[in-house]
Amino acid sequence: MTALIERIRTIVGPAGLVTSEPELLPYATDWRKRYVGRPVAVVKPSTTEEVARIVRVCAETRIAIVPQGGNTGLCGGATPDASGSQLILNLSRMNRIREIDSRNNTMTVEAGCVLANLQRAAADAERLFPLSLAAEGSCEIGGNLSTNAGGVAVLRYGNARELVLGLEVVLPSGETWNGLRGLRKDNTGYDLNQLFIGAEGTLGVITAAVLKLFPLPRSRATAVVAVQSPAKALALLEHALRACGERLTAFELFSEFCLSLVLKHFRDAAAPLPERYSHYVLLELSDSQPGDAVRVLAESMLASALEKELIIDAALAQSESQAGVFWKLRELISEAQAHEGPNIKHDVSLPISRISEFIAMTDAELARAFPGIRMVVFGHLGDGNLHYNVSPPEGVAADSFMRELAAVNRIVHDAVARSGGSISAEHGLGQLKRDEIRRYKSPLELELMRRVKAALDPLGIMNPGKVI
Amino acid sequence: MTALIERIRTIVGPAGLVTSEPELLPYATDWRKRYVGRPVAVVKPSTTEEVARIVRVCAETRIAIVPQGGNTGLCGGATPDASGSQLILNLSRMNRIREIDSRNNTMTVEAGCVLANLQRAAADAERLFPLSLAAEGSCEIGGNLSTNAGGVAVLRYGNARELVLGLEVVLPSGETWNGLRGLRKDNTGYDLNQLFIGAEGTLGVITAAVLKLFPLPRSRATAVVAVQSPAKALALLEHALRACGERLTAFELFSEFCLSLVLKHFRDAAAPLPERYSHYVLLELSDSQPGDAVRVLAESMLASALEKELIIDAALAQSESQAGVFWKLRELISEAQAHEGPNIKHDVSLPISRISEFIAMTDAELARAFPGIRMVVFGHLGDGNLHYNVSPPEGVAADSFMRELAAVNRIVHDAVARSGGSISAEHGLGQLKRDEIRRYKSPLELELMRRVKAALDPLGIMNPGKVI
Repeated sequence: MTALIERIRTIVGPAGLVTSEPELLPYATDWRKRYVGRPVAVVKPSTTEEVARIVRVCAETRIAIVPQGGNTGLCGGATPDASGSQLILNLSRMNRIREIDSRNNTMTVEAGCVLANLQRAAADAERLFPLSLAAEGSCEIGGNLSTNAGGVAVLRYGNARELVLGLEVVLPSGETWNGLRGLRKDNTGYDLNQLFIGAEGTLGVITAAVLKLFPLPRSRATAVVAVQSPAKALALLEHALRACGERLTAFELFSEFCLSLVLKHFRDAAAPLPERYSHYVLLELSDSQPGDAVRVLAESMLASALEKELIIDAALAQSESQAGVFWKLRELISEAQAHEGPNIKHDVSLPISRISEFIAMTDAELARAFPGIRMVVFGHLGDGNLHYNVSPPEGVAADSFMRELAAVNRIVHDAVARSGGSISAEHGLGQLKRDEIRRYKSPLELELMRRVKAALDPLGIMNPGKVI
Repeated sequence: MTALIERIRTIVGPAGLVTSEPELLPYATDWRKRYVGRPVAVVKPSTTEEVARIVRVCAETRIAIVPQGGNTGLCGGATPDASGSQLILNLSRMNRIREIDSRNNTMTVEAGCVLANLQRAAADAERLFPLSLAAEGSCEIGGNLSTNAGGVAVLRYGNARELVLGLEVVLPSGETWNGLRGLRKDNTGYDLNQLFIGAEGTLGVITAAVLKLFPLPRSRATAVVAVQSPAKALALLEHALRACGERLTAFELFSEFCLSLVLKHFRDAAAPLPERYSHYVLLELSDSQPGDAVRVLAESMLASALEKELIIDAALAQSESQAGVFWKLRELISEAQAHEGPNIKHDVSLPISRISEFIAMTDAELARAFPGIRMVVFGHLGDGNLHYNVSPPEGVAADSFMRELAAVNRIVHDAVARSGGSISAEHGLGQLKRDEIRRYKSPLELELMRRVKAALDPLGIMNPGKVI
């Protein structure tokens, strides 16, 4: 290992190498602190050429590589195992925006660019880069693409996968594939970009990407709406899509229990409506046109929803800052739940038409198995994506509840499978769900994935133990 | 071969098998009549199970399969070779819409559904299926997906690739992969859908798909605009995107020569503006809102474009029927050019920022090499996609001009490559560009494609001689 480290040091210099135990720890620990790995070192290259040279050394010496960006993933996909033999390849120093081509509506960026910086750079060029998610202040675009990140703007703009025109990838052989084409149409063979997006670093290392930019929204309307049930929320979604079409940018659901946790743990937070209701929808319309039209549309859409008894009450934000307050309620749910104590998280997706039935069925099944259990249900309803989280019954010790993790997961994930859903909507598999997925994917689909893996990474050095 | 045909007949029955020479001919001939193959037979299964059984027989007997839909492809991708040993697998009888889930905004359809029928079925459910292209009355969705079709709505809704949530595919082994999930988010491993989309039937046979549906547009504004040059058209594109954002649905360019060919060969056609100009843009705005707002917006956008001297004149359609007349001018270009005589077609894409320079450079280079040559330049400018076609100089016999095909292609495609473009934007490679692409793709990229092909089709029975 010493020889390996010396070879790598000659590639990246002392500034690009971390080897001391205490310095390694943050890189070796995942965001939720569920996994702590033991890497041989962390290498931080600053150019694609350095990445390629490192991978060649690893291929030659059969050292496993764990690609890492902002290390904000929720499934342990960027955390090495405990063997002490895996190398973390952290892309954070590759953080240049290589080009913004505003007429082509594209930007070419390196993997280590922090997402929020890309949003800002796009805005400076009077464009929108729409990917937006909780970790945007520290997650990096290479990780976003490797996990096909979702977030709050998928309803309008799609997942990370749909925001990419081209990639640069260092392959497991150490060769560099330059697919940095800024083309909206290119039908010249298999779409290799799509293979690497969402592969969680198991097929190669994404080092740069050409991203799509969009016209900047210049007006917005944000509302919190009270609904009687998830079923009513879904009827509202249909109503809003019909009334507002392409303007509907976000459609988020959260339950009264979610709101109560936020209000309990954050003194500054205030309930959005004078009374409390069973469920809430946070929705947002946006438009490239400036002016009041989008607000007027939101008002009329909500008025007719009230008339049709789809909703019980609604508050339309009167200012950007009130819109921010509404969004904060939604964004603080995860943290509030963490303050409340350990809980069991699920990131699931379902056909939108089956969500209501899924929630009712799964709530009932969990309540039967674990009386008093508390569901913290929220998520990107417009995308069919629920964060169906579960907190212990009041008074039950966290420890004893967390011992039921596998049993709770089994109930939730089996229900997801029965409803034609996915057990990982936007977070990926990583190491957290790598075994779990085998229960839900057909052997044939797993076999196809294994063949793709073997075709691209025959030595098996790219992020082993993840995904497949 | 007789034994093979008998085995296949027992699978599909007599109604599913074509073996007589005259009946085989239309299936064996491509749309542009450039390729005429000699198939052993045409088999027309009516269920996925029949497809699977046919493929198993072929895998066992090493018979090559040429999947075929509406047979409207422009690159010979669905035409067998002349060996007499390849089997055409025509999906036209698999034409059921299995489900429309309007709340999930999806429809599950079989490969043989004609595109226009799917558009209508979506409209009947008050939804939009946006894929739209010249051949929509006879092309089939399986072919559209296998070639990742483009068309006139890509600017707003994306290519076929972006309209798919899930696939059902019969693999080269005869096993059936059921990936028919109607999920907007699903991060559980490699995205196999994307591998089969655009693979032109070389990795498996797409038998069904879950397609995305969108809110129905309820107002529209269509205009033909005169511009001085492609550069001005591009400036108008930027202006229109800024002013109209998500409402810009189509942005098509055509030159005066294109218009003159349409007027010459179609008596009913009329010039859209009182005078004639160098280039025209056909643009369309659409909105899910009914009413006049989108027309008013189009008027103000065009007025400010006139003021900024981006455009010279504009005609905004006063009715749906006038909009249809404008579209017809654009749609008749290919046919008008065919009436004019043989020509050399190119389906290229470029970064939008480089299109103007590309046209100027390539026009000049072709004029130097072939004095008097006439460029028929039109296409989906909003997507960076040009149909950069070339007609012989006036008075030059078609035959002698067509002998220059390779030299003309070389000039055009080399210029595309220098500008960072693609030599097949929306038509695919098929057999037409299978060899040509080797000049423009890196050996590494070709090697990756070959590895994917070998991993999924180790026997090489799926549409050999196409793509790779």
